[in-house]
Amino acid sequence: MLGINEIGYYIPEGRISNYDRKTQFGIDDHFIEEKIGVRQVSLKTPEEETSDLCVKAFADLQGKIAIDPNEIEAVVVVTQNPDRNIPHTSAMLHGKLGLPHRCACFDISLGCSGFVYTLSIFQAFMAANGMKKGLLFTADPYSKITDPNDKNTTLLFGDAAAVTLISEQPKLVSGAFSFGTIGSEYEKLICNDGILFMHGRGVFNFAVKVIPDDIRQMVAKNNLTLDQVDLFLLHQGSKIIVETIADKLLVPRGKAPYATYDYGNTVSSTLPILLADELSGKASNIVICGFGVGLSWASGLLKRP
Amino acid sequence: MLGINEIGYYIPEGRISNYDRKTQFGIDDHFIEEKIGVRQVSLKTPEEETSDLCVKAFADLQGKIAIDPNEIEAVVVVTQNPDRNIPHTSAMLHGKLGLPHRCACFDISLGCSGFVYTLSIFQAFMAANGMKKGLLFTADPYSKITDPNDKNTTLLFGDAAAVTLISEQPKLVSGAFSFGTIGSEYEKLICNDGILFMHGRGVFNFAVKVIPDDIRQMVAKNNLTLDQVDLFLLHQGSKIIVETIADKLLVPRGKAPYATYDYGNTVSSTLPILLADELSGKASNIVICGFGVGLSWASGLLKRP
Repeated sequence: MLGINEIGYYIPEGRISNYDRKTQFGIDDHFIEEKIGVRQVSLKTPEEETSDLCVKAFADLQGKIAIDPNEIEAVVVVTQNPDRNIPHTSAMLHGKLGLPHRCACFDISLGCSGFVYTLSIFQAFMAANGMKKGLLFTADPYSKITDPNDKNTTLLFGDAAAVTLISEQPKLVSGAFSFGTIGSEYEKLICNDGILFMHGRGVFNFAVKVIPDDIRQMVAKNNLTLDQVDLFLLHQGSKIIVETIADKLLVPRGKAPYATYDYGNTVSSTLPILLADELSGKASNIVICGFGVGLSWASGLLKRP
Repeated sequence: MLGINEIGYYIPEGRISNYDRKTQFGIDDHFIEEKIGVRQVSLKTPEEETSDLCVKAFADLQGKIAIDPNEIEAVVVVTQNPDRNIPHTSAMLHGKLGLPHRCACFDISLGCSGFVYTLSIFQAFMAANGMKKGLLFTADPYSKITDPNDKNTTLLFGDAAAVTLISEQPKLVSGAFSFGTIGSEYEKLICNDGILFMHGRGVFNFAVKVIPDDIRQMVAKNNLTLDQVDLFLLHQGSKIIVETIADKLLVPRGKAPYATYDYGNTVSSTLPILLADELSGKASNIVICGFGVGLSWASGLLKRP
């Protein structure tokens, strides 16, 4: 059975401190540490392209597990900030990694729900086509589109990439998923003329209204109760959003960790970066849930094979 | 079993005649009719966005088959020219079509191989998640990115959108697929600063070298011989490319039709538009094959359920 074998990631070393921007944005330590929960955001260099971040995440993966590039049968890149519109970033990456011609490559355009969606899409595609080894990249460097003077975005989003090796030697396999869209509210997170706009309050209200119910239903679909879940890895939109969802689920906050103080919200890379540390951990039943751009959400259950 | 139930499409009425550009580009009737095989290219209005083309394709679909929007559980849009990078076009379309919140939406970034790839991806995703009705849109209006003074692109590409209804009442179901990528040659079809560049000879050489062998192998994987295939629907890159592939396959040209004289190469919409006419036709075994941007290709077999 296909599942998550290993995860590599790359968080660029560059940082912008939010403490240095307190005066500019009229914010205080409480806002930084308790509301958004982002002390600093990670920042790639201007020269680093989306595919370059992916190459570095792949190098991290290779440090964790031996991979023969010739065995890779499929590559997907989840991004809404590709190197360029044409070709897809996965094709450029295919060339950079020297992968074989008999390798399926495509990109998926999704934001913060992208990892969970694509885990389902990619595993289903691989299984249907008898593929045994594939790479699921997430890389959405928002520094390309955030306005450094927009408090609603520049304090939150960090750059990163992750790569999840899907194979028949999984450490975690997936159960039933759940997906949803409220396309009529797409303007709450939108890119206009290359600049990201986010209606922070609107996205918050959407998440805390929709996500707890969605997780409850998805967990029930997996024939589990909430207290049988060991860990809830929620998209790290902000500290307050994670805590509010945990509280609404009546789940101890320790089971739904907020952890991205030092690099920020890395969009679709958020969940695989958190998950990397849990692959060899003790948690048996792990909920993963992403939400954001679309408005869109996806949740799923991961368990030991 | 999931498969292709019905196909709707929209080709904008606007046209640019290639006969009117003979002097500008130093071309003659033979070049227009026998080499590229494009007399005129279809052209959307500047106001029509990618999602608008999809809405019109959906209206065409509704004229062919009754659809309750509340039954749609998944939407995918294949495009490399979305309305905007964020959100994905499928989310905007979800709002425009008034689809239910319990509907999975995502975009796939692929070019001329996009329909075949996504037919496999989308059917696998739907099956894995128990979904019964979904919409596969293709819409890649290249008029957004072609330079009207570049003979290599402006004479070839037309605007269109198509929507393929995937359901459990299929007229055609798919067999085994085949996929490939030569990412190291991505520069042969590339968008730089919003303008498409195509190395026409390079793409031609790639296609006539790779595609015939790929189709042979894929047909064999489906336990058929080439002469058991009734119809070869090849991506309509140009008349000469279709004829050369047919000739290399030793297949009568009538079995591998070239048909897009009057609107041009509509990228990932090319195959579903051709296929729409064959859904209720006599052909039992139909090869579909797309190739282009990436460089990327995909081929598959469609048969009667």
